[in-house]
Amino acid sequence: MTILNKNFSQNTHDLDLSFKPLRGSKKIYRECSNYKDLLVPFRQITLSNTVDHKGNETPNEPLYLYDTSGPYTDPEVQIDITKGLPKIRNHWIKERGDTEELSQSTSSWRNQRKLDPDLDTIRFKNSSIPLRAKPGSNVTQMYYAKKGIITKEMEFIAIRENCRAEFVCSEIAAGRAIVPGNINHPESEPMIIGRNFLVKINANIGNSAISSSITEEVEKMVWAIRCGGDTVMDLSTGKNIHETREWILRNSPVPIGTVPIYQAIEKVNGKIDVLTWEIYRDTLIEQAEQGVDYFTVHAGVLIDYVPLAMKRKAGIVSRGGSILASWCKIHKKENFLYTHFEEICDILKKYDVAFSLGDGFRPGCIADANDEAQFAELKTLGELTQIAWEHNIQTIIEGPGHVPMNLIKENMTKQLELCSEAPFYTLGPLTTDIAPGYDHITSAIGAAMIGWYGTAMLCYVTPKEHLGLPTKKDVKEGIIAYKIAAHAADLAKGHPKAIDWDNAMSKARTEFRWEDQFNLSLDPETAREYHDQTLPDEKSKKENFCSMCGPDFCAVKISKDLCNSDTNN
Amino acid sequence: MTILNKNFSQNTHDLDLSFKPLRGSKKIYRECSNYKDLLVPFRQITLSNTVDHKGNETPNEPLYLYDTSGPYTDPEVQIDITKGLPKIRNHWIKERGDTEELSQSTSSWRNQRKLDPDLDTIRFKNSSIPLRAKPGSNVTQMYYAKKGIITKEMEFIAIRENCRAEFVCSEIAAGRAIVPGNINHPESEPMIIGRNFLVKINANIGNSAISSSITEEVEKMVWAIRCGGDTVMDLSTGKNIHETREWILRNSPVPIGTVPIYQAIEKVNGKIDVLTWEIYRDTLIEQAEQGVDYFTVHAGVLIDYVPLAMKRKAGIVSRGGSILASWCKIHKKENFLYTHFEEICDILKKYDVAFSLGDGFRPGCIADANDEAQFAELKTLGELTQIAWEHNIQTIIEGPGHVPMNLIKENMTKQLELCSEAPFYTLGPLTTDIAPGYDHITSAIGAAMIGWYGTAMLCYVTPKEHLGLPTKKDVKEGIIAYKIAAHAADLAKGHPKAIDWDNAMSKARTEFRWEDQFNLSLDPETAREYHDQTLPDEKSKKENFCSMCGPDFCAVKISKDLCNSDTNN
Repeated sequence: MTILNKNFSQNTHDLDLSFKPLRGSKKIYRECSNYKDLLVPFRQITLSNTVDHKGNETPNEPLYLYDTSGPYTDPEVQIDITKGLPKIRNHWIKERGDTEELSQSTSSWRNQRKLDPDLDTIRFKNSSIPLRAKPGSNVTQMYYAKKGIITKEMEFIAIRENCRAEFVCSEIAAGRAIVPGNINHPESEPMIIGRNFLVKINANIGNSAISSSITEEVEKMVWAIRCGGDTVMDLSTGKNIHETREWILRNSPVPIGTVPIYQAIEKVNGKIDVLTWEIYRDTLIEQAEQGVDYFTVHAGVLIDYVPLAMKRKAGIVSRGGSILASWCKIHKKENFLYTHFEEICDILKKYDVAFSLGDGFRPGCIADANDEAQFAELKTLGELTQIAWEHNIQTIIEGPGHVPMNLIKENMTKQLELCSEAPFYTLGPLTTDIAPGYDHITSAIGAAMIGWYGTAMLCYVTPKEHLGLPTKKDVKEGIIAYKIAAHAADLAKGHPKAIDWDNAMSKARTEFRWEDQFNLSLDPETAREYHDQTLPDEKSKKENFCSMCGPDFCAVKISKDLCNSDTNN
Repeated sequence: MTILNKNFSQNTHDLDLSFKPLRGSKKIYRECSNYKDLLVPFRQITLSNTVDHKGNETPNEPLYLYDTSGPYTDPEVQIDITKGLPKIRNHWIKERGDTEELSQSTSSWRNQRKLDPDLDTIRFKNSSIPLRAKPGSNVTQMYYAKKGIITKEMEFIAIRENCRAEFVCSEIAAGRAIVPGNINHPESEPMIIGRNFLVKINANIGNSAISSSITEEVEKMVWAIRCGGDTVMDLSTGKNIHETREWILRNSPVPIGTVPIYQAIEKVNGKIDVLTWEIYRDTLIEQAEQGVDYFTVHAGVLIDYVPLAMKRKAGIVSRGGSILASWCKIHKKENFLYTHFEEICDILKKYDVAFSLGDGFRPGCIADANDEAQFAELKTLGELTQIAWEHNIQTIIEGPGHVPMNLIKENMTKQLELCSEAPFYTLGPLTTDIAPGYDHITSAIGAAMIGWYGTAMLCYVTPKEHLGLPTKKDVKEGIIAYKIAAHAADLAKGHPKAIDWDNAMSKARTEFRWEDQFNLSLDPETAREYHDQTLPDEKSKKENFCSMCGPDFCAVKISKDLCNSDTNN
């Protein structure tokens, strides 16, 4: 039922979007009792019956899991990536009556790109007219939350997170959670980032000057959400950033984040000295009118902190941080993101773009963790959070980086304190520097821990970190490692829904329901493949053992027999 | 310089032992100033010069790493696996004068196997005559340590761990560390397991009734130590366990552990009801006289605790635990390992086999973690530790298993308290059940944490856990994940040598010394391969960027330029 248009790209790489439902899962929707147009997706995993040693069967309830994969895994939906996804939030946004359609974009860059015939072959053809808040209006979810108004986005999230809509609303109002949902990204399914909800993960994609095409990036996005990515950041730094992002946004059911400074610096051909606030400002508008849901803004990279970072072993490892630190030094001026912060707020609130206040001074190696530069910036980010909140702009705070286990907790404690409980969004942290090629693992350790301590969203790290641009396979490896970290954190925090999944798996395992075990796995295909490597025939999937122990040595089997003998006695 | 005899096995699978030195590393030996026959192996990683922005070069000191790979990575040593490794400890053991050569094994099973002509094709031909303590002698390292005698093993370890031999001795005497080194395994290079030393990792290998041959198991052992395994457990449950183990022992430079109940139950064809203390006793002697360095003994599986485990979601998941629990129930008697514990001690001390007191009631799923069954057994293991120590038997305690992050610390705290600081040796723990196919990651998270809290050795988990028998590739994946966990723990504990490695990597990274970065990696081949996937040419290994950010967007480069401009001003 899938329409695949492969002609949109001059690239020879075949678009291999996986549009099939996840193996063993069925997409279902739960309807909101208040609003019939509000359908919340879930993955339903149907389980087989429990058969006891006497042959009696007892049914097992299906398991319903949070589903990030969007319409791609719904066989009823026709996907045509040249048209983009259904705009499910369009009506919700418009009925609030606080937005207006612009006759054209207010970004000069966008308008200029639109007229360039050379871009015809790569341009997304079905872009919408941009929306913006009516003059004097504030369209952010935080604005509504503070008024006590429960939006449809909040209702959607309440069903998705299995909690009350009032709770969603109060967490957003308090700044403890955000709902990234630009009014120009109506394709997105509402989701929430906050430590009193399920821990979320972000997957980074994006081309660089060296590698990757638009096709590949769209493919990576679809792949990322299929594997479980809750948001996707497009970190493109190569050619055609605007067009790449348009394709991604129009086809993305999850919030998209960007680092606008990456594009701004591209516009001046990498020349930091000629970068201006005006160029950056136009970039913010350009991206906000496309629908980017959150912006990384390195407004805490202050000129006074730069010498602190220069004393380090690894200096500045944040791209944005290094650009802005250079800008400050070249111009001998304060960071323009800091001096223009209120103007940035004025832009963001017109589209409900959330802040992700960037940590330009995050430590880039174990030795630099928790140093003066890092915490000086964090304090500034806390102050900026207060300003953002005055504008009702939803705000999250980015965190490190490279941190040994013994110093992780301090990051969380300080962040909660300095940033008044705004959600924390960390990159790992990596717990050692010695394992390039395996940094999804070095960092999943730190991510799981900081997630348990209270981080709301974990930015994934792929096996390619420090070595190269991730492929589709790397994206999957990174996401699975981070789904593990996030879920381990949910379990450790005692999230009421988290343990159900583990219990369903454990029950299937002790009952040798192999198919159920595969289907309940974070990665059903891999679980099945690994089992089949030693026991490929279908019969073995009904056996009361696996190749690990063989038929006579399975502890689970012996233990079950023991338990049954107890029952019989 | 390598002799490979491929004819010893009827198996068609080619023996692919990796006998080359590790890429970028050179095997060197440090001599002990007191004893010239004591040569301690290290991996020397030679680093290239630092070149500053003015072109001035400064040399970087080589890095010396703990080396588990044995003679296999020494191009000067001729390896012939049909002959076995050089017996480096032979002379040290004999000069102590407390052992005697037996005219033949005192195990009836071994003597019987020796006469079986059907085993001629698979039998290792160059077995030694077994040694045993002279009547009335105790040959354990703990015995010597308590007397204040520093053995050559302790001297070796002091150099290996970069500490004083007196400290090694006192830690062994206090029971806080063990040196697994059976007098019948003189091929082993001394190593220590204790929380005041580097955190160690164990790799499990072994065939099952379903899969694998002797050749493959020897290959996995060599592979495991090449990747960084500190000890190897042979958990074979299939055919020819005795012969497989002999090949492994004679070719292993690291301590080998086993679970003797696995072989004992094979001897009675899996019939738990006919298993006797006498069969088990002969198995202990058989294995002790072959040279097994530590035995997992599930002596804490008491009949009174079985009902506690039956109440669980996952019951008993330890193979040994389930066998012994069944035995207790069938015979309505106390576990014979518990009732005969002093006799077991009498055997172990004659060969210096260490106890690894098994956790038969380790939790097998998240829901069962830290329950009554688990902690009841742990208390018993603590009592048995006291008995073992009265016999001067070195003892470690096995731990879980499946534990959510919030319950991990309690495991360590209780273990230290109940077992009087005997080293803890945990399997993971896995921090969630939902990721079969990725349990090296679910468990590396728990392993890193519990290692930081004080666990001395981490038993690895491979991606095949819960699904099948690991292949060579799985063994490597498991080991790398656990080297990461162990090293992250060393860093978090502030081990003085651990940070040197990370610093060397960070310095190479900020200076774009790509070859050094690869060579300093836990897995140099993979790091290089990943880099080369996007930038394959040799020139790119001298570039000041990678494909992740491309040439214009490298934060490290911008940050360096910034730092240099500082220096120039």
